[in-house]
Amino acid sequence: MPQGQPTRVPDDGLSTRQRRNKPLIMVHTGPGKGKSTAAFGLAMRAWNQGWDIGVFQFVKSAKWRIGEQTVMERLARLHAETGEGGPVEWHKMGSGWSWSRKDGTEEDHAADAAEGWAEIKRRLTDERHDLYLLDEFTYPMKWGWVDVEDVVETLTSRPGRQHVVITGRDADPRLVAAADLVTEMTKVKHPMDAGQKGQRGIEW
Amino acid sequence: MPQGQPTRVPDDGLSTRQRRNKPLIMVHTGPGKGKSTAAFGLAMRAWNQGWDIGVFQFVKSAKWRIGEQTVMERLARLHAETGEGGPVEWHKMGSGWSWSRKDGTEEDHAADAAEGWAEIKRRLTDERHDLYLLDEFTYPMKWGWVDVEDVVETLTSRPGRQHVVITGRDADPRLVAAADLVTEMTKVKHPMDAGQKGQRGIEW
Repeated sequence: MPQGQPTRVPDDGLSTRQRRNKPLIMVHTGPGKGKSTAAFGLAMRAWNQGWDIGVFQFVKSAKWRIGEQTVMERLARLHAETGEGGPVEWHKMGSGWSWSRKDGTEEDHAADAAEGWAEIKRRLTDERHDLYLLDEFTYPMKWGWVDVEDVVETLTSRPGRQHVVITGRDADPRLVAAADLVTEMTKVKHPMDAGQKGQRGIEW
Repeated sequence: MPQGQPTRVPDDGLSTRQRRNKPLIMVHTGPGKGKSTAAFGLAMRAWNQGWDIGVFQFVKSAKWRIGEQTVMERLARLHAETGEGGPVEWHKMGSGWSWSRKDGTEEDHAADAAEGWAEIKRRLTDERHDLYLLDEFTYPMKWGWVDVEDVVETLTSRPGRQHVVITGRDADPRLVAAADLVTEMTKVKHPMDAGQKGQRGIEW
């Protein structure tokens, strides 16, 4: 990624430094690959800066452990042992949120998603993390499990220096409007179109 | 990324397993963010599978050290010390390729790019890596420093199980045609449009 120059200087009363350091709302959407992968790449970069990272995966299946989780948890352990990088917490909905007392056998995904979002709101208020990675979070919004207006209001009024990246298809236009950076991943060609299944090391 | 099902089964005489394990040519292109970041996310996943990774950055500036390099080199050291994950080699053009005898002061980027590609060809013949990450490699092709036909011929006839991911804008149509997976990152909204500069932890 080359260093870019701003295309215009806004009349917002902020210095370049203040503007540079503005915490971002980022959205990776669209039907193509790379939405989550780029978000986890961003988390790797954030770890290197010593940031505190909170990952929240809004996925149904608990069995689905992706390689990124193993690596980020390994980096978190490295941080704990040597002080390198930053701390990482990894939470996923499918196995029951780790902070929740429920046993995870309940199949109420809507309630699980709402509970995940409620916890993220508490953490944003507490300024708990430097980077929040809300993976596949567009879906609970799309399905009405989490209120889009509440998300937009909470994110745009969040205190401090907290970056948020949200992934998933079909991002709500209100979320797109509120975001600072939105990238759409478009599928040009995919091996599954040629009858190929996902494979280890590429898809997970 | 949910597990997908193929949309059709091709008549290519291969079993599902053979098709699943087909090594891929992947291209991340388009004007949006996330092309390189997703490729480095993929490298993190590959490391976790124990793959041998070769990163080749076709960028001009040697000063530009991105967070991913620090993290991937740390993971490589972890591999050397504990056997976890896989080995990682990181080469960049701007400082003079590490395998080259030249002192790196020469400003002939075209020759540097051609030399980088020649080395990658040798490594592909030797089946040196499991994943090749050719970052910003579309530009030397676009500028005529590296012959697109040679790239396509070399990649499509490469031996063994070697995955290749190429990033950069304006991927040549012949490269797109030869690739198994192509994602276009489209810019919907970018902070630089609002006068904001790049910031630590987000851009590098």
